[in-house]
Amino acid sequence: MGHALVSIVMGSDSDLPVMREAASVLDELGVSYEVIITSAHRTPGETEAFARSAADRGIKVIIAGAGGAAHLPGVIAAYTHLPVIGVPIKTPSLLGVDSLYSIVQMPGGIPVATMAIDGAKNAGIFAAQILALENPAIKEKLLDFRKKMAQRVKEKNETLAYLGIEGYIKRKEKKN
Amino acid sequence: MGHALVSIVMGSDSDLPVMREAASVLDELGVSYEVIITSAHRTPGETEAFARSAADRGIKVIIAGAGGAAHLPGVIAAYTHLPVIGVPIKTPSLLGVDSLYSIVQMPGGIPVATMAIDGAKNAGIFAAQILALENPAIKEKLLDFRKKMAQRVKEKNETLAYLGIEGYIKRKEKKN
Amino acid sequence: MGHALVSIVMGSDSDLPVMREAASVLDELGVSYEVIITSAHRTPGETEAFARSAADRGIKVIIAGAGGAAHLPGVIAAYTHLPVIGVPIKTPSLLGVDSLYSIVQMPGGIPVATMAIDGAKNAGIFAAQILALENPAIKEKLLDFRKKMAQRVKEKNETLAYLGIEGYIKRKEKKN
Amino acid sequence: MGHALVSIVMGSDSDLPVMREAASVLDELGVSYEVIITSAHRTPGETEAFARSAADRGIKVIIAGAGGAAHLPGVIAAYTHLPVIGVPIKTPSLLGVDSLYSIVQMPGGIPVATMAIDGAKNAGIFAAQILALENPAIKEKLLDFRKKMAQRVKEKNETLAYLGIEGYIKRKEKKN
Amino acid sequence: MGHALVSIVMGSDSDLPVMREAASVLDELGVSYEVIITSAHRTPGETEAFARSAADRGIKVIIAGAGGAAHLPGVIAAYTHLPVIGVPIKTPSLLGVDSLYSIVQMPGGIPVATMAIDGAKNAGIFAAQILALENPAIKEKLLDFRKKMAQRVKEKNETLAYLGIEGYIKRKEKKN
Amino acid sequence: MGHALVSIVMGSDSDLPVMREAASVLDELGVSYEVIITSAHRTPGETEAFARSAADRGIKVIIAGAGGAAHLPGVIAAYTHLPVIGVPIKTPSLLGVDSLYSIVQMPGGIPVATMAIDGAKNAGIFAAQILALENPAIKEKLLDFRKKMAQRVKEKNETLAYLGIEGYIKRKEKKN
Amino acid sequence: MGHALVSIVMGSDSDLPVMREAASVLDELGVSYEVIITSAHRTPGETEAFARSAADRGIKVIIAGAGGAAHLPGVIAAYTHLPVIGVPIKTPSLLGVDSLYSIVQMPGGIPVATMAIDGAKNAGIFAAQILALENPAIKEKLLDFRKKMAQRVKEKNETLAYLGIEGYIKRKEKKN
Amino acid sequence: MGHALVSIVMGSDSDLPVMREAASVLDELGVSYEVIITSAHRTPGETEAFARSAADRGIKVIIAGAGGAAHLPGVIAAYTHLPVIGVPIKTPSLLGVDSLYSIVQMPGGIPVATMAIDGAKNAGIFAAQILALENPAIKEKLLDFRKKMAQRVKEKNETLAYLGIEGYIKRKEKKN
Repeated sequence: MGHALVSIVMGSDSDLPVMREAASVLDELGVSYEVIITSAHRTPGETEAFARSAADRGIKVIIAGAGGAAHLPGVIAAYTHLPVIGVPIKTPSLLGVDSLYSIVQMPGGIPVATMAIDGAKNAGIFAAQILALENPAIKEKLLDFRKKMAQRVKEKNETLAYLGIEGYIKRKEKKN
Repeated sequence: MGHALVSIVMGSDSDLPVMREAASVLDELGVSYEVIITSAHRTPGETEAFARSAADRGIKVIIAGAGGAAHLPGVIAAYTHLPVIGVPIKTPSLLGVDSLYSIVQMPGGIPVATMAIDGAKNAGIFAAQILALENPAIKEKLLDFRKKMAQRVKEKNETLAYLGIEGYIKRKEKKN
Repeated sequence: MGHALVSIVMGSDSDLPVMREAASVLDELGVSYEVIITSAHRTPGETEAFARSAADRGIKVIIAGAGGAAHLPGVIAAYTHLPVIGVPIKTPSLLGVDSLYSIVQMPGGIPVATMAIDGAKNAGIFAAQILALENPAIKEKLLDFRKKMAQRVKEKNETLAYLGIEGYIKRKEKKN
Repeated sequence: MGHALVSIVMGSDSDLPVMREAASVLDELGVSYEVIITSAHRTPGETEAFARSAADRGIKVIIAGAGGAAHLPGVIAAYTHLPVIGVPIKTPSLLGVDSLYSIVQMPGGIPVATMAIDGAKNAGIFAAQILALENPAIKEKLLDFRKKMAQRVKEKNETLAYLGIEGYIKRKEKKN
Repeated sequence: MGHALVSIVMGSDSDLPVMREAASVLDELGVSYEVIITSAHRTPGETEAFARSAADRGIKVIIAGAGGAAHLPGVIAAYTHLPVIGVPIKTPSLLGVDSLYSIVQMPGGIPVATMAIDGAKNAGIFAAQILALENPAIKEKLLDFRKKMAQRVKEKNETLAYLGIEGYIKRKEKKN
Repeated sequence: MGHALVSIVMGSDSDLPVMREAASVLDELGVSYEVIITSAHRTPGETEAFARSAADRGIKVIIAGAGGAAHLPGVIAAYTHLPVIGVPIKTPSLLGVDSLYSIVQMPGGIPVATMAIDGAKNAGIFAAQILALENPAIKEKLLDFRKKMAQRVKEKNETLAYLGIEGYIKRKEKKN
Repeated sequence: MGHALVSIVMGSDSDLPVMREAASVLDELGVSYEVIITSAHRTPGETEAFARSAADRGIKVIIAGAGGAAHLPGVIAAYTHLPVIGVPIKTPSLLGVDSLYSIVQMPGGIPVATMAIDGAKNAGIFAAQILALENPAIKEKLLDFRKKMAQRVKEKNETLAYLGIEGYIKRKEKKN
Repeated sequence: MGHALVSIVMGSDSDLPVMREAASVLDELGVSYEVIITSAHRTPGETEAFARSAADRGIKVIIAGAGGAAHLPGVIAAYTHLPVIGVPIKTPSLLGVDSLYSIVQMPGGIPVATMAIDGAKNAGIFAAQILALENPAIKEKLLDFRKKMAQRVKEKNETLAYLGIEGYIKRKEKKN
């Protein structure tokens, strides 16, 4: 794929099961990426070094996932002019509302583009949408991705029309 | 400035006092833009036409502000592959939590990059950050903008050291 | 049953286990219906076409279920003058508060009649209440439905008086 | 206008400044209505009598506004098979979240069609949408109402294009 | 025990596993009670009849549990001058916040004494505290109940001092 | 009036404008009371002494208002078997949700009967409802109070029928 | 006073009117302090330098106030082993819930001691409580401060007993 | 270890599985502690006695965990000038938001240093940070603890770089 255009960063390896959806959709859209664990609080120096050097290493977009007092996306954004996309991770007590507010409510001057709670897939797609502005190959894949997505909805609708609600649910349960 | 690269859209003219901050920071960053009022619910056809044609008209990034059941950013994102930045507008009863949830909690497949409640200024800056990836002039202005922002914080800190808390507050109150 | 008077729409087949309760109560109340999967974001064109044509196809009431940034009911309401009933679907992180706010907080001009989170059964009953205004057969069934519902509460109360709390709970646990 | 088709009910005269918007849009849509103050808690007998007799008096739709522990719409719905539309009124402490939850979270069996907090205007429109199913005159007025609403959005957009943001805001401030 | 002094009421038999804690603590405190299922929405007439007759039947305090749009305690309070204690039942989506707000936010004039979410045990104790004002036997049992409660805390503290944290947790896990 | 039956307690004199509504309704209902400022945190010894001695001084019911981390009602309830009614006071930031949760979510064993946020009036009425169980004079006044309350609602309804919405609102504005 | 033992830090000069309460109570308790404006996002390098050098400069406790996505206290805590006390500042839309969650929900390893929203006064007192552990002069002032605080509550209670509610409120209104 | 410097207190033995994390990190940091169960509501006298005597017994910092209407930390803070650290325990219905607000929103004058919901580990670390101000051995251990924590993050990052996302997740699942 060539060198990474997107950096997927997270503060803890417990975020991996959510954040891999970003990686997975970037694979599908033909976008090269790197994956990094670095903590805003436990390894602040490494996080700063990562953020300061990202643009020079050829990274174009950063996706940062974090939970609780989720400072990682904002701290990275403070050290780089690259677009930073934040993914609030669901937490056991506050269910991710804490993560969401910690990421989205950035003060004027340093934006973080916030996705839904656990919305890593959309973070990957949004990164691709940014890159697609100047990269026709990614744009092509993106348009194709959307077509397939629409196609799947239409097929489900046809299956539902054919099987009816109860038939559809039974078939789906069988598949799982 | 040449033709618009960013489109600032809102559902109602009551959103203008917030959304003008996006315009104003884009002016400062040397990014050309257009401003449009179109409603997801009251003029759905116009909204669709706007979103479908934006890319062809040379628009690169769309900033959409909306309040309450804030569907405008998501509806636009459904019709275009351009990056859409959503600005949740504060509401009288739910204070913008409704706007925030309606914008940020997009389902997998169609992302909206969400800013803070009433965070139109950051929407403008984020749009510029995207454009700066391929536009050295905007990048230059962006870096300069950040330097000035840091400078202002440092100057305030020096003034505070010089005047003390009470002196600082008095001087600030006089200025207003 | 003759052609459909009610259209039950949802954005994803994952909403079916909730939305089938609307279908099921409409069966009980003798109201014909259709069931459709169409997404406000993934198939916006189909959703628009559905909404625009519903009245002409003889549909009288639309029930739309959606979760997260739940735009489907509002988007449909934008394209038709038929009454639209919204069902907010429970979500894993925000538990359906996001869905509820996205549906109920519609701006002045385009109402959506919102039910409880996961309240698809009540959506079916409310659709029947609307139709019952001009359809004596549905009205009859509705009154009968309410009588039976009251009867069941009274029977439970009598069983409780007879068995006592512990006896009642034991019998109920056995049944499940 | 002939006898009332819609009943606008509220628990306290402090709800009148909100609820009059329902009356006012019904006037515009040519729908006759009555306005009643009755409390679920302070005059429960009168509320029951009102709800039991509404259908026989020719009422087709009931709009009930209430704030706080907002039981009025649900209590009325318990005594009639007519469609009941609930309007949660904003409260000083919980801002109407209490009113919203008390109205929208009705148990299975007895639905209340809930509008936005302080959304009395939409309650009126939704009542008209129900009546329009069998009343061509109301349907006509409703379609006209929507056309005008769309027209106003388009005119604002044109004015904005002509005056620019600052010019637009200045002119609006002058008008107020 | 003689005739019931307390009436434990609930809207649905699904509330029984919570509400039985009220019964159980009343047993412990030597207070006679009755248990009734009646719904504010599904059997409004029965609920009214129950509330109107309670005082004449010798009931002194009413405990009412309800979930969601929890109108039962307020509706009962509207028909009787007896003290009504409300127990908000936990709900699957809003976790009982809906129940709590629907019960506690009663308008001026008709109070409901609200307990914690699922706080049926405290409802029983509070009913006993009211009765104890004039009934020395209940007062005696109440004081004894509090002594035992304090005693249990002290014993746990001693066991903890003796076993240490890990030993204590192991022993507790064994017991369960 | 004779010696106090109800004690109205609050943690700060800033709670007086809310708590005086309890006093005022107790005056109306002919219930004697005392008013005390004592803080759970700033004067814990005085608060304990107050709570321990209340029953012996002839107090029957305690009304305690507090805001923020509102511990006063719970702390008092820990030291007395008398019924304690808690009034959560509205706060500037969390609007009283903090006060409400701090008061209502008492652990099993020590109940506090919680009223609405700023619901001091209902606290007074509820205290009177408790006392009315054994005091016919208070019961009489309570029944009379409820009749007048109902009467006022009916009169407002008649005035509204006579003046119409706009006339009613105008007259009310004039009065204020 | 000698060199500063406490550092009061904030991200913006708009936080000064809240944060000066920390300074003011430290004055009262005889604790020397410095006041600094530095932003986690706009001047991240300065913030890091400040945090890294604080201990060496003789600072013992850091008080950091911030609003919205309030990262300042956590970012400072990441760079120093000194105790960091966080003050969540009230915000216009989310009222400080965002600030509170961003500060209090720190991940395991890097604690921030969080105060109430706008609770700068308590931050100052808590800093003094830490210093008092080894500084008898501060301890003395702290004990004195608490005595005076208790005294003021008792005096208010006596004035209330003397003037009654209405008299007390009138006198207080006159004073303001 | 010598006599206890830190007291870990909780209201119920059900809090032990959370609170033991405080003990466990204090073991790691070489800080001696005691563990006590005492309830603000069920054993108020014991709680008061504990708080009043803590300083004299050589305790320097108190960690208090509590859930629901979580008064324990505030009640202890009212009786001692020692720093009190509060740990809000997660609750079944309100998920710990009730505990958090009850602890953090303390009124001016009596601070409680609040940690994250279930954040007992950080309470232990924060206690050590306070003690480290005057105790070089604890400071040493604390610095070492932070180094190891950073080291673990870096190792995880290296493993991830080596194994890739899917490989990493598989290995982690195997370990559990």
